[in-house]
Amino acid sequence: MSKNARTSPSRRPARGRIELIPVTGLPEIREGDDLARTISAAVRRARLRFQNRDILVVAQKIISKAEGRIARLSTFEPSAQALQLAARGSRDPRLVEVILRESRRIIREHPVLIVETHHGFVCANAGVDHSNVPGEDVVTLLPTDPDLSARRLGKALRRRSKKQIAVVISDTFGRPWRLGLTNVAVGAAGVPVMLDLRGTRDRNAKRLQATILAIADDLAAAAGLAMGKQEGVPVVIVRGYKYRPAQVPATKIIRPAHEDLFR
Amino acid sequence: MSKNARTSPSRRPARGRIELIPVTGLPEIREGDDLARTISAAVRRARLRFQNRDILVVAQKIISKAEGRIARLSTFEPSAQALQLAARGSRDPRLVEVILRESRRIIREHPVLIVETHHGFVCANAGVDHSNVPGEDVVTLLPTDPDLSARRLGKALRRRSKKQIAVVISDTFGRPWRLGLTNVAVGAAGVPVMLDLRGTRDRNAKRLQATILAIADDLAAAAGLAMGKQEGVPVVIVRGYKYRPAQVPATKIIRPAHEDLFR
Repeated sequence: MSKNARTSPSRRPARGRIELIPVTGLPEIREGDDLARTISAAVRRARLRFQNRDILVVAQKIISKAEGRIARLSTFEPSAQALQLAARGSRDPRLVEVILRESRRIIREHPVLIVETHHGFVCANAGVDHSNVPGEDVVTLLPTDPDLSARRLGKALRRRSKKQIAVVISDTFGRPWRLGLTNVAVGAAGVPVMLDLRGTRDRNAKRLQATILAIADDLAAAAGLAMGKQEGVPVVIVRGYKYRPAQVPATKIIRPAHEDLFR
Repeated sequence: MSKNARTSPSRRPARGRIELIPVTGLPEIREGDDLARTISAAVRRARLRFQNRDILVVAQKIISKAEGRIARLSTFEPSAQALQLAARGSRDPRLVEVILRESRRIIREHPVLIVETHHGFVCANAGVDHSNVPGEDVVTLLPTDPDLSARRLGKALRRRSKKQIAVVISDTFGRPWRLGLTNVAVGAAGVPVMLDLRGTRDRNAKRLQATILAIADDLAAAAGLAMGKQEGVPVVIVRGYKYRPAQVPATKIIRPAHEDLFR
């Protein structure tokens, strides 16, 4: 326990500790909202203060809302392909139409539509999602360029706070082989998305082989614990994680198709 | 910031915060070691104290070492199948032999051997691993029953500490579609491995569909941030995460083969 822990209200975590700090009290986000401003205000109200090397993990949902990446199902005319896919899976053809427009390729149909998005992400329903959106007719889409969204938000937050803040944009994805959803990174700025330990040595001085850690995904998963799906806390500060600032897009995490027998 | 944060050295995290606390100073673990005792001693030396609802995430590696789940490659005679697989992939035939004995089925050969282990986990090399083991000839195997290992360790820790402590045993696995390794749960005791939110409502009172969070994996991933592969901190306390104690094996996370088109 560092002395600091007892003396400063916006202390750094004790040596080696990492804190996951939910930023509560955000209002419902609407198209055109200045997220850096809204988040900074919530951070202030919660009597938090940004610190250098804080990593802000932001749920994709509020990025999409601020960027107007929402769709009204009633405004979509389903194509023949959408109608077919919908019929085969008892799905809303308008929803399928939206999913198809967000997709480069369909990977499987059952039990859910697994697609490759235009970004290259492989996920259910192209990330098109009903939850935490007002209105039965409204869905959110993934940001067009989540890495760009992360860079912009990071820049605006750094300008406001004068602190070096990294941003990870997270979403919950399923995966083959294991059940359940975990939070993964769909956008990143200021933090390395992967940590390549190849060639470094372990505590027995053996070279580590094939060890590349997907730390942006670990950061997203960790923040997910503090988000809580129901309570709707879409922003979490990860504090105390040591990293070298880097500009690497989260799309670098996507496994190239030619290395991936599963597509 | 709670007042507590400034008055008590073994405070609970401020409301809603989660802390990832590395337990440093563990000695090299050997077969037969009493892990509960060794970990409790390290926790004391680090001037930490267990609290109710702490979740101890423990790297598979030290569980395997304590349980004697290690193998000396020189003592294995490769079978014909091991020799063939080794020749096709420029691998050590003795290592391939060990991997085959730990496997129920081979899923793919290139670029690494992806297998289904006897537990049902799908991972590279059946979890057989060279790193952080003394000796060039020695590898660790996954625990025979990691859920049982977690239950035993949890029980012993609760007896010593008089605190309700849950245990997650973690390992780093790769995955299709995304590069890099993340920490996942291979064993669990005292904490739910999945959080089923189906039927609950989001902040707009819409029912959440198909939302089951793999929280044991999120816990493992979060702890992974505080472990650091090189530094070899194989034990992390996750503190402040709210859960209902449950006895669910981590093998419940395995997607049943008949639901999984990727096998």
